[in-house]
Order: sequence, then C-alpha cells, then structure tokens
Amino acid sequence: MSSEFGKNLRVSVFGESHGNGIGVVVNGFPAGESVDMDRLLYFMSRRAPGSSKLTTQRKEADLPEFLSGIRDGVLTGSPFAAVIRNTNQRSGDYKGFEDTPRPSHADYTAAVKWNGAADMRGGGHFSGRLTAPLCAAGGIAIQILARRGIRIAAHLANIGGIADEPFPVFPDVDLFDELNAMMFPLIDAQKAPLMQQLIQQAADEGDSVGGEIECAAIGLPAGLGDPMFEGVESLLSAALFGIPGVKGVSFGSGFDCVSMRGSEHNDPFVVVNGKVQTETNNSGGIQGGITNGMPLIVHAAMKPTASIAQPQRTVSLSRMEETKISVHGRHDPCIAIRAVPVVEAVMALVLLDLLS
Amino acid sequence: MSSEFGKNLRVSVFGESHGNGIGVVVNGFPAGESVDMDRLLYFMSRRAPGSSKLTTQRKEADLPEFLSGIRDGVLTGSPFAAVIRNTNQRSGDYKGFEDTPRPSHADYTAAVKWNGAADMRGGGHFSGRLTAPLCAAGGIAIQILARRGIRIAAHLANIGGIADEPFPVFPDVDLFDELNAMMFPLIDAQKAPLMQQLIQQAADEGDSVGGEIECAAIGLPAGLGDPMFEGVESLLSAALFGIPGVKGVSFGSGFDCVSMRGSEHNDPFVVVNGKVQTETNNSGGIQGGITNGMPLIVHAAMKPTASIAQPQRTVSLSRMEETKISVHGRHDPCIAIRAVPVVEAVMALVLLDLLS
Amino acid sequence: MSSEFGKNLRVSVFGESHGNGIGVVVNGFPAGESVDMDRLLYFMSRRAPGSSKLTTQRKEADLPEFLSGIRDGVLTGSPFAAVIRNTNQRSGDYKGFEDTPRPSHADYTAAVKWNGAADMRGGGHFSGRLTAPLCAAGGIAIQILARRGIRIAAHLANIGGIADEPFPVFPDVDLFDELNAMMFPLIDAQKAPLMQQLIQQAADEGDSVGGEIECAAIGLPAGLGDPMFEGVESLLSAALFGIPGVKGVSFGSGFDCVSMRGSEHNDPFVVVNGKVQTETNNSGGIQGGITNGMPLIVHAAMKPTASIAQPQRTVSLSRMEETKISVHGRHDPCIAIRAVPVVEAVMALVLLDLLS
Amino acid sequence: MSSEFGKNLRVSVFGESHGNGIGVVVNGFPAGESVDMDRLLYFMSRRAPGSSKLTTQRKEADLPEFLSGIRDGVLTGSPFAAVIRNTNQRSGDYKGFEDTPRPSHADYTAAVKWNGAADMRGGGHFSGRLTAPLCAAGGIAIQILARRGIRIAAHLANIGGIADEPFPVFPDVDLFDELNAMMFPLIDAQKAPLMQQLIQQAADEGDSVGGEIECAAIGLPAGLGDPMFEGVESLLSAALFGIPGVKGVSFGSGFDCVSMRGSEHNDPFVVVNGKVQTETNNSGGIQGGITNGMPLIVHAAMKPTASIAQPQRTVSLSRMEETKISVHGRHDPCIAIRAVPVVEAVMALVLLDLLS
Repeated sequence: MSSEFGKNLRVSVFGESHGNGIGVVVNGFPAGESVDMDRLLYFMSRRAPGSSKLTTQRKEADLPEFLSGIRDGVLTGSPFAAVIRNTNQRSGDYKGFEDTPRPSHADYTAAVKWNGAADMRGGGHFSGRLTAPLCAAGGIAIQILARRGIRIAAHLANIGGIADEPFPVFPDVDLFDELNAMMFPLIDAQKAPLMQQLIQQAADEGDSVGGEIECAAIGLPAGLGDPMFEGVESLLSAALFGIPGVKGVSFGSGFDCVSMRGSEHNDPFVVVNGKVQTETNNSGGIQGGITNGMPLIVHAAMKPTASIAQPQRTVSLSRMEETKISVHGRHDPCIAIRAVPVVEAVMALVLLDLLS
Repeated sequence: MSSEFGKNLRVSVFGESHGNGIGVVVNGFPAGESVDMDRLLYFMSRRAPGSSKLTTQRKEADLPEFLSGIRDGVLTGSPFAAVIRNTNQRSGDYKGFEDTPRPSHADYTAAVKWNGAADMRGGGHFSGRLTAPLCAAGGIAIQILARRGIRIAAHLANIGGIADEPFPVFPDVDLFDELNAMMFPLIDAQKAPLMQQLIQQAADEGDSVGGEIECAAIGLPAGLGDPMFEGVESLLSAALFGIPGVKGVSFGSGFDCVSMRGSEHNDPFVVVNGKVQTETNNSGGIQGGITNGMPLIVHAAMKPTASIAQPQRTVSLSRMEETKISVHGRHDPCIAIRAVPVVEAVMALVLLDLLS
Repeated sequence: MSSEFGKNLRVSVFGESHGNGIGVVVNGFPAGESVDMDRLLYFMSRRAPGSSKLTTQRKEADLPEFLSGIRDGVLTGSPFAAVIRNTNQRSGDYKGFEDTPRPSHADYTAAVKWNGAADMRGGGHFSGRLTAPLCAAGGIAIQILARRGIRIAAHLANIGGIADEPFPVFPDVDLFDELNAMMFPLIDAQKAPLMQQLIQQAADEGDSVGGEIECAAIGLPAGLGDPMFEGVESLLSAALFGIPGVKGVSFGSGFDCVSMRGSEHNDPFVVVNGKVQTETNNSGGIQGGITNGMPLIVHAAMKPTASIAQPQRTVSLSRMEETKISVHGRHDPCIAIRAVPVVEAVMALVLLDLLS
Repeated sequence: MSSEFGKNLRVSVFGESHGNGIGVVVNGFPAGESVDMDRLLYFMSRRAPGSSKLTTQRKEADLPEFLSGIRDGVLTGSPFAAVIRNTNQRSGDYKGFEDTPRPSHADYTAAVKWNGAADMRGGGHFSGRLTAPLCAAGGIAIQILARRGIRIAAHLANIGGIADEPFPVFPDVDLFDELNAMMFPLIDAQKAPLMQQLIQQAADEGDSVGGEIECAAIGLPAGLGDPMFEGVESLLSAALFGIPGVKGVSFGSGFDCVSMRGSEHNDPFVVVNGKVQTETNNSGGIQGGITNGMPLIVHAAMKPTASIAQPQRTVSLSRMEETKISVHGRHDPCIAIRAVPVVEAVMALVLLDLLS
C-alpha cells in the first residue's frame, strides 16, 4: 500500500494519530529555494485545530521538525523530511472503536484489511491529523509556486447548503491575498454568520455538517498535463481523494454540466491584449487534460464529520450483534473548514510536480 | 507523458483518430483466463457509434485485432495487445481546426503543448474514439471479474436535468443483467422517452446535452484499496477523468453530502445473516479508501458534446483575431450514452488491478 | 507484470515470437522531432538476424509499421506505437519444449508462472525477437539525442575470452561513426578474425559462446540522474537486464574495481580548456548516481546462446523423468553480436528519459 | 528525484549525513508481522562503523526510533517510518570539499546538479551512512521472509583480488546461519587473515581496497518476477546500484559467462526427490527474469573507498585550477565489509516486494 503521490515530485505521508509521530517525505523539491518559516507556520496554523471556535478544541502544537532536505532555510535537493511529534494523544477517547466501529469511519475497513493489527487509536493512519504534514509540504510548494507567478486560493463554496459566491472568471491577486488571510474563507463574507450559525447549531445538537471547497490557481502556463490518464484532472483528483472525507471532485462546471447545453457550456475563445483566452471558464482551465492558461478551478465535496456525539447504531464485531455508540471528544462539526488549506496544499504539490 | 494507468495491471492506450490505428496494451492480465469473443464484441458494440439513433452515425467497424497475450481465446500472461484499424477517417470534416480551435476541445491545448506537431485530425489522441480500445481491455476485465463473483453495471443517472432512479442500496444481479443488455440503460425505463426527446431536440437545434452516469460494482470483498492516495476513490477517479468529457467524479452521496448532517450521512452498521453490512450506503462502499463489502458506487458527470453545429466564437491562431466556427459531421448529441460502457470498462480494469 | 520501463519516457514492449505481432508503445517522445526512416531501418538491420554469416539465418522482414504518434515522419507528441508482424514462424521447430524445457531458457519458469497458459512457441514473450521493437524505439531516441549532441556507440569488448580494446578515456566522434557502421563492431578490427573463428568453431560443434558489450555515450551534460535508487546506474541496469541473456552489468571499472586500490581507482579532477574533467574514468562518467560530464561507460555480459544443437539433459515435466533434448533451427552461436544495437537502443531510451 | 524503490513494497530513504537525522519510510509491510528488536539491532550492528578494527572508528549510535507503522513490536499495516538521529557529526572533517571536490565522490556532481545548495557535509545524502535506515527496513524484511522459509546470506567473495569460495550449488541453512553471525563473513574462513592483512596494509598506507559481495537467497518459490524490465535481475540491480560504491551487479555466472560455451553454461534440468532442479546454477536461480526455485545468486562489486588519506589531485571550483587534497578522518579502508548486510537488506526488500 502506498500513502504516496506524484511523479517527479513524490510526496509520502506517514504516521498514526496516536503513534510517536507523523510526517512527510518529499522527493524532488527544487534545490536552492528558500522557505519562509513564518509564512509556513501561518499556513499550517490555518489547518490546526482550535483555530476558531468552530473547529475542534484539541490542542496540537504541530510544529514540524525538519530532518533533511533543508539547511539554513534553503532546500538542498535531497529528500525533504519533516516530522511532527504526537504529544496530545488521549487514547482513552477512542477506546473500544476496534470492536464497535464508528459508522462511516475507517475503523471497520482497517480492521478487515489488516486483520486487527491496525493501530486505529485516534483514527490511526486515517486520521485528519495526517493532513498536517501534507500542509507542511504543500506550504513549501505554495511558496515556490508564488515565486513563479502562480497563486493558489480556496474558499468555502458551500456549507450545509448555504452557498458562497463562486470564483469570478478572472479572479485577481487581491482576492487571493484576502482568502489566504481568512480562517473562514469566503468570497462573500456576509455569508459567514449564516454558515457559522448552521455549524454551531449542528454542534449543539451533537451533529455535524458537510461543506464544499472551491480552489483556484492563477498564473499557470498553458500546456501543463498530459492527455488521458495523466491529465491535470486525473492527477489532482487522485491526490484530493486522499484527503479524509472527500466524496467528490469536479472541475469547472463540474456536475452542473449535466443539465447544460453544449452551446452554453462551451467556452468561446477570445483574444484579449494579444493573448488567447476563453470568455467563460466551464472547462475549469483544462481541455483534454491540459491547462489552457485560464484559472484552474477544482471543487471538493467534504462529507459531514463522521465523529458525532449523537448516539448511532453500530455492531460489536466480537459479539456480532448490534449496539449503539456515541463519539465524544472534541471533533470539528464541519471538517470542510480546516480542509481548505489542505486542498490548497495538495493543489500546490500536484502543480509543482507538473512543473518539475 | 503517459496515457497509462494501473499498478499491477497496467493499461496503456495509444492512437490518434485519423492515424493508422488505435489500440491498447495491458500488462498483468491473469494467465489462463478465457475470453468470450461474442460477449466482448457485444460489450464493445454498446460503445460503438451508430448503436442507436441518438448516437453518431459515423460507422466504425472497430473490430479489435489481437496481437499478443492471447492464444486460442485464452490469456497467456504476456502483455496483451489489441489494435483497431482506422478505416473511416473523413479528415476533411476537421480541416482548419488547427488554426481555429473548437471551443472546449483540446485543439488549442494540444497545439500549445506540442508546438503544432500534434495530429489533431478527428480530435487526434483526444478523440472519444480512443475509448474503443479501452473497452476492448475493460470488456475482458469484466469477464474475469464475473468469474470471481464481481459484477458491474451502469446507467444514465441524469440526462440534461432529467434524473433516473438511483441504484438501490442492495441492487441484485437481475438489475445488472438488465442494464448490461440496454443500449440506453435506465433503472426506470419510463424515463427513456423524456430523455430521448430532450436529446433529439438538442440535436435538431445543432446543440448537445450533458449527462451523468452512475456505475456500481457488487460482490467485492471488504479490504480492497489502500489509505490516502492509493484509495479506491483515488485510483478510480484518476482513471475516470481520463475519459474525454468527464468533469466530475463522486462516490456514494457525492456532492449531496455537502447539504447533509452527519447523523443523516453516516451509514449505521448492522448484522444481516451473520455478516456486517451498512444500512445505507452514503459511503459508496468505501471507508478510508478501502472497500467495506457494500456496493461500490461512483458517479461521473459528462459534459455536453463540445462539437456542435451551431456557430460558435473562436479565434484564428495565425491571425490572432476572433472568428466563428460550426462543427459539422456526425457527432453524438449526448456523449454520456456511449460513455456508459466506457465507465464500466474503467471500473473493471481498476478493480482487477486492486485484486492483482 | 510489466514489460515496461522509464518514467517520463515510458517504453512498453509487447508480443510473442509466434503470435500475430510484436511491438512497442512509447509515451513521452518529444513532439516535433523528425525521424529519418532510412537511418532507422539501417539501425534496425544491425539487430536483424542474417546480418552476417555468424548470426542466425532465419529471415525476418521486421519492418515496423507505425500506428500512431508519428505523422509524415514527425513525432506528434501522442503515444508512439509500432508493430512488427510475425510472418516467418516455424512453430514446428519449437514443438515439445513445453513438456521438455530447454536448459537455461524461460520455458520452465514461464510454465510455472503462467500455469501452462504461456505461448512459448519460439520463446514467446521471452524471445530475443522482442528486441526488434525495442530497437525501433531506441533508434528514434538515438536520432533525437544526436541532434542534442549526444552520441552512443558500442562494441564487442570480449567474445569467448578474446578481448577487444576498451574505449579510450576520451573517445572521439569518428570512432563512434565507425562503430555505428560495423556489423561486427570492434575498436581493434584485427581481433575480428580470431573472434569469428571462435564463434564459427562453436557453431560447427553445435555450441555457442558468450560475449561482453561495452557501450559509451558522449556529449552528456553533468547533473543527469538522481542519488540512490534513481541514479543512472540503477535506471540503466534495470533496463539492460531486460535484454534476454544479460547476466551482468557494470559501469566504468566494473568488477575490476574489486582488485584495485583507492589511490589507483579514484579519478583525479583536472581542468582542461576551462572545463572540469577527470583524468581517468573508472567512475564510468557517474558519481553518486549522477553524470559528471565524462563519457558514460557501461558493460553488459551476454551469456552464450542457450539454444544449442548439442544434446542436453532436461526433464519431461509430464512424466517427471530425465531425458535429452537437441535444439535445432537457426540460432545465433553468439547472441552478443546482434545485441550490440539493442544495448545502444536501451542506453538511448534511458538517457532520453533522463533528459525529459 | 527519488531515493525510492519498489512497487507493492515501497522503500523511501531520506537524510543527509550531517543534518538532523536520516530515516526510512516503507509502504506495504504486511500487517501483523512481529519484529524481534534484538535481532534487528544485531543485524544493524553488522553494518555499523566500528564493528571491527578494519572498519571506520567513528561512533554511531544508529539506534532507530520508530515513528509509525509498528505498535508493541507488531507491524500495523500503515506506512512504517524509522528515524536515526545524527549526533556525532564532525563537519570540520569535511570542510572545503564543496570547493575542492574529493575524487570519485559525489561532491562535484551534487554541486553541479543542485547549484551549490546541496548539503554535502559528510557526504550529505550520498553518504554510506544512508544505508543504516536501509538496514533497519531490510532487517525487518529478513525476519518476515525467514518466517516464510526464505533465508538470505552474503559473504565477501573477493577482497582486493583474494577470493573466497563461492556458494555451493545447494547451500544449506547452517552455512547461512554461520555467515549471518560473522562480522567478516567468509565461506572459507581461512582466507580471513590474508584479506585482513591486505586491508590493514592499505589502511597503513592511507589507501583503500575494493571488494566483491556474493549474496544468496534460498527457499524461494519458482515463478517470482516478470519478463523483461520487471524481471528479478532488473529489480535487484536497480536497488543494489543505489548502494554507494557499487560498480557492478551480476547474477549466477555473471561476467564469467563471457568466456563460456553454451554447452558448459546451460544448467541441465534434473529431477530430485520428485522436484525439478538444475544440476548447476549458472542462471543464478533466474531464467527469463523469473525465479526457477534454485538459489538466487547475485554479485556486487564494491569499489575501494574513495576517501583516502593519500594526497590526490583535484581542482578548486572557484579558482578553476588544480590542487591537491587529503581526506582525513576515520574511513573504512574497505567499504565492502560493512556493505555485506546492506546487500542482504536490499535483497530482502526486493524479494518481499515480489512476494507482496
């Protein structure tokens, strides 16, 4: 099995939620690029639990220690390795899930796959916590891309049915700066109270809500990606479905294309300032798997957090009989919020791979 | 670049629409499995143009010639290679697209990527025609899986906004047999006239419509797939986005999860006949990237055919000025129909890889 | 299983000796490069049987048909596919080897691996014939590299114990031109009669002899390849051991280094015309897996042809008892001769991959 | 770039000699296997410096810390990660090598490849020290294989021209036990004094000597490996050339096959106790890339240590003029000795991958 992705930039994530540590190894980071640690830690803090009242209150220091591939803040060309210690495990919270698997968690499938040997405390290798090292790697990729004129931003396109504005056809850099600075990133900030109320209400009821993230990259050259199975969609979707909780990935018009006519969906080519562009961007910046120079637009649907306090029906695997379970502890009522920087990180790593 | 996918079962598709031939090489087909040619040709005929009034009337013999890996109808273990000759090219139909790229086609991105060297006649390597060899390989994988108790079927879940019934939580084999036998596969056959009328109307107007395909696999063991980036969703989505026209891929509840509560979305575990199952299947048969033994459910959104007769705005790349284009010829007004067996083929190849 | 190699340039070889055809698919050939067909066919003819009295007299037309990836002699960027028809099969020659496997052939291992389903007529997928499509792909890579100032040549460094001169530390292009033009390539042409006599004598006795090929590339930039497992040695050796009959691969000093002192083996750095070079080249142009700008030197040991007319001891698998076998037919008494262009082809494909 | 190898068992090595730490991540270790820590540490100690008077006297604790993939001594199925801290760096020893590269080291190629950003203190990522985490992973693989009846052993086949006895055609387990227990493993222990005298003499003269390692695996089933480029030779050689200092890899008869006749080289099939075997083993246990059930025999040529105290000619890259260098510090006068367990480790990891 392989918790890895990438071709010329290989990203390998390891760790279990309640083991000694989690981390990431990246083969292929370009040598000589410097890493701004403050910016990296800020980026990682957007993913960290406790970043707002609406995210889990578990405390994770989550400070990455760099083991190799970087010296005096500059990437050396050798494999990059970063480790985050696990210091705040409360395994007691998770006791018993090995026999009574939490609904819609990986407790059951891991038990079957690894014959009971899996260390599933805290979700084990399937924990959302594994996205922290992913953000350490992705945060570096974001800095490298920015130096090449490529910017990435994402927002909460939808929370529990309440939609934010979509990205405009030609988003500008200011919007990206703003979104990158928000813990609850929205294009239409007025939607925040409504969304947060919905989340708070679910939390109060021991429940959770789903969300959709829209992520964009601007400044990309045309011609990235390959036809068919190594197209940009293929590479990005494979990496994005690696984020726990993602149930759907789409590009440009996404599933809305189903109800559209070709005359409406096709993006007319136009010439603007001597450059070929498209007037609309239903293609999401990709045609035939290859970037066309327009903003790259991807959507990820995040399911409602599976860990909820409400009692749920499950089974005891040892007794093979039905029972009930309540998952206590400090869980995000909406995992989509903290997943925003994770989606950005994955996007950055895939794009840097394509540029390598 | 790499028109390939798979790990222990490697599928490599080659060819250009108007070159000498298209084909597929598969490394890793299990030795000793027999191939029922009649069933294979029937399966491929479901993808073939002209299979119904609503699909393109271009004629393609599309009979695959087997070059290696099969002897007297039995797979030998060596790389499998099949070639389909291109005999019916009408390159005249496509003249000029190299200078005036068709909106939402790969004409422009291929021109940029390959500096004008691409052979884009008939869509070149990006043509939907490349799905024919994919079906030759996938049709064989379907036969192998069936011998192992694994069945695959798909239907037109939505055409232009008109929805079919979804798969029930526990679809039975009879439903799979029925769907496999239909050229316009629907669970609720009464939806056919409405959908077909919609398509015909679009065709009459020189336009096209989008569609959504829902594909299911039953009989899968629990425990297939790996966590994170080699989960079933990652592998399947990467392969499905290789099908021309796919804009979105989702599993189980898909993008609907965005509006759901955790208490509603979580699939309760139950014991039925001494076996662990889930009562609902919002997980789409996958938890943590790993199959849980429930039906595997995937959705693919297919955009409306980009080739339409209606005049569209494009640019002349040589003159860098705007112009108009009409794409004549015999194009499917709804590519989703013929894509149904293609999605089944890809599903089968990915699953056989996971079982290898 | 996977008869493939490469990363950004993927080479996939298929076919069985007595099936319908053999061929190669290459993903990643650079678009826009032209192919000189005469030079390609000449290159392939060096590998063809019957090229000299000392090679097998079986006749193979071995003309490749290009199916895709090339148009009017120019590579298009799409996957390149070439097929060679099998027209001269004399399966009768090979009858019985499925029950009484030829010593040191793959008859036995293929039978075990594929449970008797393998098509081993003529050696099946393990036949030296599979190197013909490899040469079709490699011959194109050689032309592309030459345009970038990189030249490749090989010679018969040793036949049955008779050694040719090794490459000088700084071989010039003229030597490469000469070697490329020879069917029995030697640096010291005076060794030809001795070697050929040895081969002829073995042939007369129904026997065969081994050989060693030394292959060099000049004009390479420093900095190609990666440390550890994706170093130049790793990539080249993995591909070279894919050639049937190769028993050893070494670089620079190779196995001679075992008897050397460090003071003797280390290559002193010197400055020549303002450029860093090494005075000797025991490193074979590679240090730490990475090219240093010196000639890249690789050696391949080719075992004596396993198919010999002399009676040999084998077993009947069905009766599980010992018996004897004589392998008649037209076999090269020294496979190293025809393997020279194959080694060059593999070298070129690996180098082009590293440059992609 | 990618310091990784393997397919279903992926091994990724990271670290720089004088960075914070070195380590290994393994994806695909089978869940539920226990790890005997004492045996693992003993295995690692065979590679550790200072294990004998003839190896470097630098002290490395080299105790691996396990970060994930193992719980209470049992592999969990998740990615396995182990880290070894760097505590004993003496960077002063290496000062200046960035400007005056050590002959036959990677100082120069790394400087060119990574434009001076490489951290080459102590050899950086190219240091033999990186083989410590490789042994941590390989030592676990060895334990898993032993439970499946597969044993691995290696010996010093040749030191500076003095040859040990080769493995017999059918080595028994006792020999493997003996070799596994020796720090200076020889089949003919009487050769030890001669070899050690040779090494000591070279060390006294500030020089070093080369060596050859022969490694064998017994208990393998027939049928492992695939034809052509994923044959056992291809996989093993690619991994072995990742070990610093390896200049050649061969199987069975190796380069000796060059001087042999086919009648002499072919391994006759015989039936022994109802099982098919070969009487000789020039094939090294592999035919057509696939194991035949005989002992797997591989040879690796290790060059003499490049770091020697004798003054050597090199250049100053900044001044582009020739100068001299002496590499002081505690270097092994014969790296082959400590490389013995490394070769065993690599062999075990590749075989476990093939069995996965």
